[in-house]
Amino acid sequence: MECIPCFVRQALDALTQVCDRETEIDRVLKVVLAEIAGFDRALSPPDMGRIIHAIVRQELGHADPYRAIKQRSTQEALRVMPQVRERIERSERPFYTAVRFAMAGNIMDYALASFWSEGQLSDTLAKAQSQPMDEGKVDELKQAIDQAETILWLADNAGETVFDRLLIEQLSDKRILYAVKQSPVINDATRQDAIEAGLEPWVELIDNGTDAPGTVLSLCSSTFCNVFDRADVIIAKGQANFETLNEVDRDVYFLTQIKCGVIARHYGYGVGDWIVTTPSALAERKFCQGGLL
Amino acid sequence: MECIPCFVRQALDALTQVCDRETEIDRVLKVVLAEIAGFDRALSPPDMGRIIHAIVRQELGHADPYRAIKQRSTQEALRVMPQVRERIERSERPFYTAVRFAMAGNIMDYALASFWSEGQLSDTLAKAQSQPMDEGKVDELKQAIDQAETILWLADNAGETVFDRLLIEQLSDKRILYAVKQSPVINDATRQDAIEAGLEPWVELIDNGTDAPGTVLSLCSSTFCNVFDRADVIIAKGQANFETLNEVDRDVYFLTQIKCGVIARHYGYGVGDWIVTTPSALAERKFCQGGLL
Repeated sequence: MECIPCFVRQALDALTQVCDRETEIDRVLKVVLAEIAGFDRALSPPDMGRIIHAIVRQELGHADPYRAIKQRSTQEALRVMPQVRERIERSERPFYTAVRFAMAGNIMDYALASFWSEGQLSDTLAKAQSQPMDEGKVDELKQAIDQAETILWLADNAGETVFDRLLIEQLSDKRILYAVKQSPVINDATRQDAIEAGLEPWVELIDNGTDAPGTVLSLCSSTFCNVFDRADVIIAKGQANFETLNEVDRDVYFLTQIKCGVIARHYGYGVGDWIVTTPSALAERKFCQGGLL
Repeated sequence: MECIPCFVRQALDALTQVCDRETEIDRVLKVVLAEIAGFDRALSPPDMGRIIHAIVRQELGHADPYRAIKQRSTQEALRVMPQVRERIERSERPFYTAVRFAMAGNIMDYALASFWSEGQLSDTLAKAQSQPMDEGKVDELKQAIDQAETILWLADNAGETVFDRLLIEQLSDKRILYAVKQSPVINDATRQDAIEAGLEPWVELIDNGTDAPGTVLSLCSSTFCNVFDRADVIIAKGQANFETLNEVDRDVYFLTQIKCGVIARHYGYGVGDWIVTTPSALAERKFCQGGLL
């Protein structure tokens, strides 16, 4: 329920990206509100998001309302990429530095705010190397990667993909499957967005078969689910992947900023925290906090 | 339309103030969403707010969901009142200083955010004397008050009322009619809230006959409308009064912080601005900006 005001805002944001006729925005917004009013309470927030954005796309007859925003995000990230790559390469521990910038890139998110600005991106990049983060967990991720042949990477937003690429460049001896959404939803990366971020030479691009935010396994294609089951290591970017996969029986490494109060309260984090964790570490954390979470 | 996400949040906020049963919150929220989905596009934001909060009160069977919050707001304001009064009395120009603190008190608003904190109040009080503000317009207000016998004061939020009182104490030779809402709506002050703020010895308490945010004259009682027509000076606190009265044919003096992007964009202000203006000054401003507003 706490997510509903945010979904109404998201719907309005999506509508105003590609439509400037007030009567039409009003008409579709009312369809969305009626749908939300009828929602089954058992629906998870990513399920709700999937339905709402599908309505917006269908009612407007527009396959990808965030297309222009995604292109601008990718271009902006590509613009700063050379400097960020230089900072990674010059650093003492390029892998750790690249993880930090991949986390910083997670700021380029339209699910949680109506906009981010270039200033926000540069502020986030500036603090990338000093932001508190569980480095022990990054050690663990590094060891898992060192022993892995195949890595499944669950992408999040367009633009953020460019910062993913800088970490992926550090893993050039591994087979990396980079999974995007099959259909556009909010500003989540699709195949086209990943190609524009220059990921193609570095990864095998796959899609998860869905138009849901995060990774709702029950909706994903069997091809994707096979990869999910068999990959040696899974890296999952962003809050929606954290929301949808934090109880799966696999060691998924979540790399995300905590961006909303609902998730922060529910898992005992602070808004703005940078989180590196796995479902097993999260379960242990819940246990240690006396089942409070 | 841009106000709709905010109304959904307000409804949820109001519901969670007095109800902790999820199924009940969900049920009423769905009634609200269905109502919003059916709204006539011609409704103004304060009309929408009135309807939504009436539904919440009626469905919950609770006359005043913000009652506890309003009491805490008033108590917190009364706690800091002696220091603020001392700052007013020690200042070179007590009237101007009191206007500034009356403006600062307008931060105690639950229409525009789910909460304010004591920190926000003390930050706002700290900047009260340095915040940019149109002092020329305050001069004009002072001259109008000096020549007036009867002043109609349109109150805004509980707690803010205490800071109103400190300005009203500076006007002890005038007849002041202090108008509150007849029925509770959000955290707007009612008669009871004004009494708890200690206003009774200083003013004649009246109500406007409505449960709408701001002052929707078409809904107000004839008693109130008579006072509105005949008062020598009208002082209107807060953004909702500004929204509902900025085109009336009277020199209403608005004292408000601009707290949301929709109003800021619509009238060419910045979010966070402290505004002292009148309908005629506003019309002139629109004209000078080439009809852009």
